[in-house]
Amino acid sequence: MNNNFNDIDKIKDECGVFAIYSPIGNPNIINYCYYGLLALQHRGQESCGVTFSNHGKLETIKKMGLVHELFNTLSINYHPHAAISHVRYSTTGDSNLSNAQPLTGHSRFGAISVAHNGNLINTDVIKLQMQNTGIVFQSTTDSEVFLNLFSKYSSLGLEEAIANSCRITKGGFAIIMLISGKLIAARDPYGIRPLCLGYLKHEDSYVVASESRALDVINAEFIRDVDAGEIIIIDKNEIKSIYYKENPNKKICSFEYIYFAKADSYMDGLYVHDVRLQTGKFLYLQNPIEADVVIGVPDSGVAAAIGFANASKIPFDVGFIRNRHVGRTFILPEQNLREEAAKLKLNPVKSVVNNKRVVVVDDSLVRGTTAKQLITILREAGAKEVHLRIASPMVKNVCYFGIDIPNSKDLVAHQMDVTTIKEKINADSLEYLSLENLRKSLGSDNFCKGCFTNVYPIRIDIKESYDNL
Amino acid sequence: MNNNFNDIDKIKDECGVFAIYSPIGNPNIINYCYYGLLALQHRGQESCGVTFSNHGKLETIKKMGLVHELFNTLSINYHPHAAISHVRYSTTGDSNLSNAQPLTGHSRFGAISVAHNGNLINTDVIKLQMQNTGIVFQSTTDSEVFLNLFSKYSSLGLEEAIANSCRITKGGFAIIMLISGKLIAARDPYGIRPLCLGYLKHEDSYVVASESRALDVINAEFIRDVDAGEIIIIDKNEIKSIYYKENPNKKICSFEYIYFAKADSYMDGLYVHDVRLQTGKFLYLQNPIEADVVIGVPDSGVAAAIGFANASKIPFDVGFIRNRHVGRTFILPEQNLREEAAKLKLNPVKSVVNNKRVVVVDDSLVRGTTAKQLITILREAGAKEVHLRIASPMVKNVCYFGIDIPNSKDLVAHQMDVTTIKEKINADSLEYLSLENLRKSLGSDNFCKGCFTNVYPIRIDIKESYDNL
Amino acid sequence: MNNNFNDIDKIKDECGVFAIYSPIGNPNIINYCYYGLLALQHRGQESCGVTFSNHGKLETIKKMGLVHELFNTLSINYHPHAAISHVRYSTTGDSNLSNAQPLTGHSRFGAISVAHNGNLINTDVIKLQMQNTGIVFQSTTDSEVFLNLFSKYSSLGLEEAIANSCRITKGGFAIIMLISGKLIAARDPYGIRPLCLGYLKHEDSYVVASESRALDVINAEFIRDVDAGEIIIIDKNEIKSIYYKENPNKKICSFEYIYFAKADSYMDGLYVHDVRLQTGKFLYLQNPIEADVVIGVPDSGVAAAIGFANASKIPFDVGFIRNRHVGRTFILPEQNLREEAAKLKLNPVKSVVNNKRVVVVDDSLVRGTTAKQLITILREAGAKEVHLRIASPMVKNVCYFGIDIPNSKDLVAHQMDVTTIKEKINADSLEYLSLENLRKSLGSDNFCKGCFTNVYPIRIDIKESYDNL
Amino acid sequence: MNNNFNDIDKIKDECGVFAIYSPIGNPNIINYCYYGLLALQHRGQESCGVTFSNHGKLETIKKMGLVHELFNTLSINYHPHAAISHVRYSTTGDSNLSNAQPLTGHSRFGAISVAHNGNLINTDVIKLQMQNTGIVFQSTTDSEVFLNLFSKYSSLGLEEAIANSCRITKGGFAIIMLISGKLIAARDPYGIRPLCLGYLKHEDSYVVASESRALDVINAEFIRDVDAGEIIIIDKNEIKSIYYKENPNKKICSFEYIYFAKADSYMDGLYVHDVRLQTGKFLYLQNPIEADVVIGVPDSGVAAAIGFANASKIPFDVGFIRNRHVGRTFILPEQNLREEAAKLKLNPVKSVVNNKRVVVVDDSLVRGTTAKQLITILREAGAKEVHLRIASPMVKNVCYFGIDIPNSKDLVAHQMDVTTIKEKINADSLEYLSLENLRKSLGSDNFCKGCFTNVYPIRIDIKESYDNL
Repeated sequence: MNNNFNDIDKIKDECGVFAIYSPIGNPNIINYCYYGLLALQHRGQESCGVTFSNHGKLETIKKMGLVHELFNTLSINYHPHAAISHVRYSTTGDSNLSNAQPLTGHSRFGAISVAHNGNLINTDVIKLQMQNTGIVFQSTTDSEVFLNLFSKYSSLGLEEAIANSCRITKGGFAIIMLISGKLIAARDPYGIRPLCLGYLKHEDSYVVASESRALDVINAEFIRDVDAGEIIIIDKNEIKSIYYKENPNKKICSFEYIYFAKADSYMDGLYVHDVRLQTGKFLYLQNPIEADVVIGVPDSGVAAAIGFANASKIPFDVGFIRNRHVGRTFILPEQNLREEAAKLKLNPVKSVVNNKRVVVVDDSLVRGTTAKQLITILREAGAKEVHLRIASPMVKNVCYFGIDIPNSKDLVAHQMDVTTIKEKINADSLEYLSLENLRKSLGSDNFCKGCFTNVYPIRIDIKESYDNL
Repeated sequence: MNNNFNDIDKIKDECGVFAIYSPIGNPNIINYCYYGLLALQHRGQESCGVTFSNHGKLETIKKMGLVHELFNTLSINYHPHAAISHVRYSTTGDSNLSNAQPLTGHSRFGAISVAHNGNLINTDVIKLQMQNTGIVFQSTTDSEVFLNLFSKYSSLGLEEAIANSCRITKGGFAIIMLISGKLIAARDPYGIRPLCLGYLKHEDSYVVASESRALDVINAEFIRDVDAGEIIIIDKNEIKSIYYKENPNKKICSFEYIYFAKADSYMDGLYVHDVRLQTGKFLYLQNPIEADVVIGVPDSGVAAAIGFANASKIPFDVGFIRNRHVGRTFILPEQNLREEAAKLKLNPVKSVVNNKRVVVVDDSLVRGTTAKQLITILREAGAKEVHLRIASPMVKNVCYFGIDIPNSKDLVAHQMDVTTIKEKINADSLEYLSLENLRKSLGSDNFCKGCFTNVYPIRIDIKESYDNL
Repeated sequence: MNNNFNDIDKIKDECGVFAIYSPIGNPNIINYCYYGLLALQHRGQESCGVTFSNHGKLETIKKMGLVHELFNTLSINYHPHAAISHVRYSTTGDSNLSNAQPLTGHSRFGAISVAHNGNLINTDVIKLQMQNTGIVFQSTTDSEVFLNLFSKYSSLGLEEAIANSCRITKGGFAIIMLISGKLIAARDPYGIRPLCLGYLKHEDSYVVASESRALDVINAEFIRDVDAGEIIIIDKNEIKSIYYKENPNKKICSFEYIYFAKADSYMDGLYVHDVRLQTGKFLYLQNPIEADVVIGVPDSGVAAAIGFANASKIPFDVGFIRNRHVGRTFILPEQNLREEAAKLKLNPVKSVVNNKRVVVVDDSLVRGTTAKQLITILREAGAKEVHLRIASPMVKNVCYFGIDIPNSKDLVAHQMDVTTIKEKINADSLEYLSLENLRKSLGSDNFCKGCFTNVYPIRIDIKESYDNL
Repeated sequence: MNNNFNDIDKIKDECGVFAIYSPIGNPNIINYCYYGLLALQHRGQESCGVTFSNHGKLETIKKMGLVHELFNTLSINYHPHAAISHVRYSTTGDSNLSNAQPLTGHSRFGAISVAHNGNLINTDVIKLQMQNTGIVFQSTTDSEVFLNLFSKYSSLGLEEAIANSCRITKGGFAIIMLISGKLIAARDPYGIRPLCLGYLKHEDSYVVASESRALDVINAEFIRDVDAGEIIIIDKNEIKSIYYKENPNKKICSFEYIYFAKADSYMDGLYVHDVRLQTGKFLYLQNPIEADVVIGVPDSGVAAAIGFANASKIPFDVGFIRNRHVGRTFILPEQNLREEAAKLKLNPVKSVVNNKRVVVVDDSLVRGTTAKQLITILREAGAKEVHLRIASPMVKNVCYFGIDIPNSKDLVAHQMDVTTIKEKINADSLEYLSLENLRKSLGSDNFCKGCFTNVYPIRIDIKESYDNL
């Protein structure tokens, strides 16, 4: 579960990955993993895991639950030189421990451990063909497909085995692996899922993570993003870059910027926070409006609200206070309390909205139920008018590459037009960010906007077979 | 522990209380307690407890840990008509289960259960005298003193027993009790600790809580604050108000507004958020400064930062992102990581502060260590100048009435003057809110400012004996 | 719950106590408590607790559950010089943590901690009188009554305060206390509940325990039983004996020998195992019978079965194997499985009973339901005849002094005569040990046999008031 | 860990298996598994697991710990028609959750789940060859080898795939599987590991288990043992038997009878208890001795002691009382207490052995350390003479087929002759059961006695390769 309020109603990404490689055994690796993974906890709170290369042996520990719960179970005598780690919210595969990552296996390469963020769209075909050669799959994770592909191609040598595996799998992915004492990182040919590289100078250690904030918390220097179609191999002697696909065509997930990544991360040349400020600015420019106060829906709507306030000169203020302790556990649920679920998480600041014309900015609108509740809350707190601004275009289509967008039938923008939605949620006005202004906010065309446009970087009906499997 | 970032370095209040009375048995009471207590979880995360008046019998359940952990252990077959509940962070008494509240005992009144927020300053004298009559104390909580006093005076009748107990105990307190099927709430003669009364119309139930947000989450209507020196008694037939002290002189804790209460609460006629906006405004007016951006230290510094930005026309922005999952558990702590503790909790948004003159607003400055770390973080993120503004006066003295302020030797403002502090924490400038401007922000003189002024509403050297104990 | 099979159907004693006093701080105390308490775990498995006199301060830790669970929560930095500890199965008071022992309070004596085994019959009167003076009781345990009595009489000095408390309370009890750095042990005036004294030579430490086996496991030497009506006070300088009642008239609980104590314990001059062998011998002599094999119901029926076999020359064999792992947790219980509850715990050894005339010996018969099930099991396993022998007289009356015997209406011997019971449980013959032969097995008249005879050492209708309370 | 006392010092078997097949969905299956597995808990207490065929889907739940802990985590909405379940003590593979069983995978057969008891000796060769074809192994359990072999041969059809897998794997094994809605059970060609078949009439369900006592507890009828070299396939329509090896040569593990199985089980035509009585009888006849009492070491030495007593006419008695609650957790271990470990588990009954010539019978002697401690304990309790009788021959060799016998260097019988051992353990006399008398006790030559004789049914140096892998 994502801790953001917005998740009641919203899109979820699958996972976060964090890896580190030190040329020598270093117990600090455990701390770095812990803090790095904590900084990615918002990307997955269902299960987590870590594989340490410990005294030359891979040791994998996984747990349903949060990062601190996993690390509390660690024995103290690890002295690893490298590690890969993972947090997970399931979008594919069942939600249980056998699908937690990393996944570790013993192949003719020796021990391999794999973790990834993302989603493959051709695993059914690949698994079927591999099963026909006798392979047995023990989980429903894509990582197991990678693991078996690497093993399959292992006779080609390490680099080509990885490259071939990345070529055959179709989808959005950011993979980290430990093989033969090496740390390997790879990103899909379109760079759909994020992955960046850092360096921890005083330890001479390389770090790979889904978001740059995981580098920040351990004081690692940001070097660059792993490139679309690139494989990075780190061992004792060198860090090596291989492109398994030439001239990759970047189609980075725009939803990371809109909602999923944390505001303090820097991804593929853009600060997430800056993109959000821009969306707020353009939302105002699209439809200048008069109002008394601008508020954001915590947490991912706040930056766009500030952008809107700056552009409009309408004062920004804090309109909602989150109740952080409302969490996974709802006991003895009564219907009338469930309906108040939004209020349980977000309480209005009455003095901010009472008797005011309020602009409320949220990052996206998926099912619409939360928006309706929030507007009711604001009106009950005395708001004279409530103008909802959505800092992204209409979400009309599912995502195939690792963001958990519900089926079309649950997408309000798939069912209704803007006017109808406005009425349904009882807003005085409703405005979505235009596709063009999303492009401007992001500054280029290098982004996947499939959930808005139904145009995806990869054909999603791939059913081809693979001769060499 | 308080979840706010500021707590590494900061003042802590003791507890939160929540109570509800329904004229008839009502299983919803359990839900209301759960959500009400969740809304007060920021007031204490060490232990919690609840006493239900269940089928005419008091049943008390307590646990070290968070509210949801307690309620997960509840059996399903409660059908209570009333409840008192409590969250605790210890400032007095040992931190263990035997000191958790509510405290339930069997007296000639029958069963009594008591919970309170606050601190008494004359318990040593009272306990000694009572022990000399043979009384045995099984905990070190003030609630046990109340319990024994009520029992002692029980021959005077319920109302006078409570009134007498409240008169004899000196300090700041907000008490809730269940006696003989009645719910009783009382507040100290100066109203130091907050307590408010609400009404849940569709259940015909009264609610008492430390902060009004606990009424909001269950959709209870705010009626009024319990008054200083007032006792409220609720039973099946009526709600009755008694004043055990005439003409009380209000000295409400100013620190609740500055730091401890949540921004969405309304206390003694003031919105907490509004007070904080005011402190920010006055901070600017005290010393108008030029800068490029104003940021607040989450969470309690943000409102003052907005007030500052509004007054100064310097843009407000989000300068820090909290890492919520950094919590109680620090494993394998290495010194170099500990020094980064602030960073683990707050990561700067580089694009917001890089190459900027930054005004950073925090609610208070206690030890000064966090402020120093934050300023370092901002400079590393590229801030050209860092101007620290503190939305309260200098904290120079301990609190005796329920806020956990460290000893003077740990209070940076007790040790140094402003200039020295500014240098120690490496700020380009440092400004505290003046006492006069705190008064203006609060709008009257009805507030205790002892931690700033060393002037307290009650003589703190009370050693008198009590003839009738 | 008692681990013996017999408990499905049977009588339960309340508690076990273990205490140790070392003249100097000694971390081994923790181990001794752990092992001593483990050796008494059969006396109570519901909750347990320990109070350490640690660096001059009493620290009490209690837990619902088993001894090893409690000690797993202990911090390592204890350096106690003395401890009292307790295991509990509740016969009086509610079953929850607030009734777990030891109970620790702060009186004018300073800190006192109390734990006991047994049951008082006049606590209602005592509590009522004390409540009328303002005392509040926070639990329903008799230990709290002791605690308040000691405090009440404290002006008389330690020894007289204890003596007076023991005189006023009526019932069967074995108490251990820590007061002012001293260890105190006391036994009721009839010696109903057991308590013995040991010495751990190489540590110069004294030990007090409910059963001698707790001395054995830590290699402490058995010195003697604490006497009926005796108080023992151990401090740095001496071990002192006081009699609070002259010429006590011993009425030791006979049920400890029949069922409750472990066979390897030595109590008041008798080996428990020897008494049981004797009961078996007399059972045969009462009614010599022909059969092919003698088996015992594990565990407490086995010794009597051996005694029977030795006297009769009929071969003894193992007729039932216990399934130890069938424990507290019965999930998803289906009725047809519940009826097999006995089988789940005891599986017959078919080759031992098939086609045989079987004598089966059990220690007592309370409700009769288990006996009926066991006989069915034996017949299904092929037994030609089943002759049930009960190594105690008919249990017809409740116990007031600490053994959990059900109400008369649940006592089969209260409802029916021997012939009817025999038919109800479908035995080929049924024989109880006669009262006279129980006397012979025990060797004297110094035993309470109230549950068989309805003659108790103390009048159970005590309602007198106590002038000086 | 095995709960028997003897395990401090002794041989351990790996696992227990329990399976059930009902023609229709039946929630009772959960109960049957629970009780069946409880009855086998002595065969493995490290981890346990169960796979349900639930609404046509395999669901596997595994846990480190005991059976009741696993079942407490079960959701209530299972409606399975079949299940396989497993308890484990590791002799091969690491001890962690990823090696717990059953193991479930997805192959071209569909989902398969496998659990087994036993040990294969040629897995290294098989795994190496399979890895060379690209197969990745995710655990170190033999069950994963079975799983991959079945998948490998799946094109041959279900029956032949299983038969082939059983032929290729060398060792002692009892396997249970769920494939395509069928329950399959197979036993190694020598019948080394036990496996029996039962029928639950009122549910029309078949049951397979390691020991017959698991049938008894659920009231299933014992049909017969699964035969050496036999595969049994149960589906909705029929129960089918296939022999994958003709004329199998039985070599059943003799150690199951001596120590590992529970006395109430019936295996391959023999009652375990009867075999033990026989070993006791022959121990006496080998060397008739005069003594005053015969005692057994609980639990597995007791039956032999009774056999000895019957043959010798020396009275049998209970010499030791087990302390059941001494378990896995030893806190704060001090050396002098560790040395008393035996005493912590077994306390002598002084009145039984004091001043007596004692014959003490144990089932086997492995390291010899426990025997030495027990003899010391008996002497301290007053035994005049202690004569140790061992109800099995000298254990001199490791077991390759699933019993955890330590390395030769830790086997006292590998290092010393009988006289030296007798002196080392300070016995007045020591006698082992002769090989010939073990044969007589078992009644035939159909038993593996490799740990005594170093003659095994299978060559243990198999390194052959398998052409068709």
